[in-house]
Amino acid sequence: MTLLANARILTMDAGMTEHDRGWLRTGGSRIAALGGGPAPPPLAGEEVIDCGGDIVMPGMVNSHCHMTMTLFRGLGEDVDDRLFRYVLPLERQAITPRTVRIGSTLAALELIRAGVTTVADMYYFEQEVGRVVDRAGLRGVVGQTLADFAPPDARTIDEGLALTEDLAGEFRGHPRVTPSVAPHAPYSTGLAAMARVAEWAALNPGVPVQLHLAEMVSETEWAARTHGCRPVEVVDRAGLLRPGLIAAHCLFVTEADMDRMAEQGVGVAHNARSNAKAGRGIAPVAGMRARAIPVGIATDGPMSGNTLDLFAQFAPVSMFQKLLGQSRRPMPARDVLRMGTIEAARVLGLAARTGSLEPGKEADLIRIALADPRLHPVWDPYATLVFAALPTDVTDVMCAGRWLMRGREVLTLEHDRVMADAMQVAGEFGAVVAAIDGARA
Amino acid sequence: MTLLANARILTMDAGMTEHDRGWLRTGGSRIAALGGGPAPPPLAGEEVIDCGGDIVMPGMVNSHCHMTMTLFRGLGEDVDDRLFRYVLPLERQAITPRTVRIGSTLAALELIRAGVTTVADMYYFEQEVGRVVDRAGLRGVVGQTLADFAPPDARTIDEGLALTEDLAGEFRGHPRVTPSVAPHAPYSTGLAAMARVAEWAALNPGVPVQLHLAEMVSETEWAARTHGCRPVEVVDRAGLLRPGLIAAHCLFVTEADMDRMAEQGVGVAHNARSNAKAGRGIAPVAGMRARAIPVGIATDGPMSGNTLDLFAQFAPVSMFQKLLGQSRRPMPARDVLRMGTIEAARVLGLAARTGSLEPGKEADLIRIALADPRLHPVWDPYATLVFAALPTDVTDVMCAGRWLMRGREVLTLEHDRVMADAMQVAGEFGAVVAAIDGARA
Repeated sequence: MTLLANARILTMDAGMTEHDRGWLRTGGSRIAALGGGPAPPPLAGEEVIDCGGDIVMPGMVNSHCHMTMTLFRGLGEDVDDRLFRYVLPLERQAITPRTVRIGSTLAALELIRAGVTTVADMYYFEQEVGRVVDRAGLRGVVGQTLADFAPPDARTIDEGLALTEDLAGEFRGHPRVTPSVAPHAPYSTGLAAMARVAEWAALNPGVPVQLHLAEMVSETEWAARTHGCRPVEVVDRAGLLRPGLIAAHCLFVTEADMDRMAEQGVGVAHNARSNAKAGRGIAPVAGMRARAIPVGIATDGPMSGNTLDLFAQFAPVSMFQKLLGQSRRPMPARDVLRMGTIEAARVLGLAARTGSLEPGKEADLIRIALADPRLHPVWDPYATLVFAALPTDVTDVMCAGRWLMRGREVLTLEHDRVMADAMQVAGEFGAVVAAIDGARA
Repeated sequence: MTLLANARILTMDAGMTEHDRGWLRTGGSRIAALGGGPAPPPLAGEEVIDCGGDIVMPGMVNSHCHMTMTLFRGLGEDVDDRLFRYVLPLERQAITPRTVRIGSTLAALELIRAGVTTVADMYYFEQEVGRVVDRAGLRGVVGQTLADFAPPDARTIDEGLALTEDLAGEFRGHPRVTPSVAPHAPYSTGLAAMARVAEWAALNPGVPVQLHLAEMVSETEWAARTHGCRPVEVVDRAGLLRPGLIAAHCLFVTEADMDRMAEQGVGVAHNARSNAKAGRGIAPVAGMRARAIPVGIATDGPMSGNTLDLFAQFAPVSMFQKLLGQSRRPMPARDVLRMGTIEAARVLGLAARTGSLEPGKEADLIRIALADPRLHPVWDPYATLVFAALPTDVTDVMCAGRWLMRGREVLTLEHDRVMADAMQVAGEFGAVVAAIDGARA
């Protein structure tokens, strides 16, 4: 039991309730109560923390990520054919349960330090990722990725589904780790395999489906050429455009596509920075939100977006919609923060448990210090958080009632060990990259 | 005399020379020598600092800013008519030498903490800003702003020019503070007044001219309606499109405008984030750079861009050009970093003194720790700095051979006093804002 007192509480609940000076009490993994004004008397054995006016808000939710790819961060920047030049060869040669474990542990360390308490991941050997998320104390939706390009852990879709069965078997009913199945994308999984995933998913109702969708012009061309329709329609034909689908990217969607997505209860993980860095474009977020499609902020893998913190995404998410709308008004700071908390939780099917501070919900919360000169004055706390705050302003992180970080010290992972392991693997990868570059020279 | 040893030196010189393990020696305000490998033996009385492999690079250059407006940071976010609703009334009522001094001191504290050693400023009571820049130990180009809307310090252009004379008189020949004259913008200063500034500037060759140019659609409309030409042509007719002109924004420039700007030796301060947050658009940076127009990164005032650090600008600067170019290739990380250092120095006419680490140039440099998990692995140090590093990774800052910050402690300003003064003034401004909001309600 913990009692946070003297906090500036941004609940992110439906009414955007704020308590300029408030308190919050946890009980077990949950929020027992919260309110404005002076804290109630502490209970026996309760830890009381005076937050000194700091912000307390929900832990952030990163709705699409490839945690292991921290190991590729900054590799092949500005190179258009990086996927075929670097990523696929490196993944075939170097992605193993060990490197997945080490890379996703580095990611978990970064996520906690940035105030992210929930992450949706898609990668290979995903059981390892689930175990890392569990060990780090985070909440996660961990998706075993299936693809027809023979990824490093499965030569066939059958083998991929078998890995998914293992993953679901290990984590079904886990309080924080939700197993998930992740067909890579329409063009890289194919209609027949997606239809098999749809059948499997229908038999496994607690296992959400994630995929990349409508991310590239070449994907739109593939769908037209191969199926005479648009990518969203291919997914629909496969039976995957269904309630709870977590669709990442969705840049190239028409009004009709969005109508259908809204009708089917699909959620979108919006990777603003990754999409822009690739020169691909800006997702029509205004159109999605106008249809009440839940849209969550996401970082994508760190080879695309470099970091896993949502702070780096906030300004781009807002700026891009203001540019499209040619006005300051679209995507105000408070909407951006909703997309990084409660709306992202909705995308992941976790809105009943996390994403806002309300009694009965899980105690997933963070404390943010407003001490830095860069943050002052605070005319509007949402603007301060969205346009000026940094991951390093997060001081404390709690997930499911357990402290993962206090005073910027991560408690669930051994910082130095995590870094040493990651540097070791990066060195091994360096040799592979040198060989790739050498073969081209 | 200081000897930095065991540093990863990014010189940002013309050849982009790097020393993976290098050293740098200062002498007085300058860089005496630098090189790769182990440091030479220390001289008598020399302070030796082992940088432990940290990055040492030039201090960053913020080529357009309104330092005092830190006090307005986050006010009127997402409000299209904020200029008339908040800014102008607040400036008339509340901008005095005292509030300019206090606001620009808060900005100086933030700049130093973010590794910015040179700043170009435009505001009112600019003599106060010059004194603050001097006291903080920063390098600056401080521009007395002139406008025909009766700004708080001058009812007429004559009064504004008198203030400029005072400013130039105080700082002419100063080793770090360059006085400057800043007609606000074509539409707000007018052709006749700009022509007077041009005459004055011709008689004062050490005083560069700064102005806002081609920032808004309404400005293009004004120029067409009033003068039958484009904003750049109005400035040209006034005689201000001249070598050394520092033109901020330049969103709405044609190919012909850019040809003329290149021919006349104009430099551009590129405010990517401010322009995007206002929904105004993206400056055609590729076209400028193709013409060898120097383009420097800038934050604009913190009411527009929220923070004064260049890290928050780097990703937008790159992403926007990749979006326009529909490819990963435009504006690679090393070009972005050049635009935040040596190219910005060129815009300000200071490239012979700062912006790169070369013997004989001023010792304006920063040290950046690569300790954070978010920064690893480092495949490419430029990508790490541009897409993953944060102001809080800057540990030490030197300007003109003097340490302004060591181990994140600012040495030239009293942190707590600066913050207390700023909070006091923010409170006073709050009363004015409440009255403005009350009058509207």
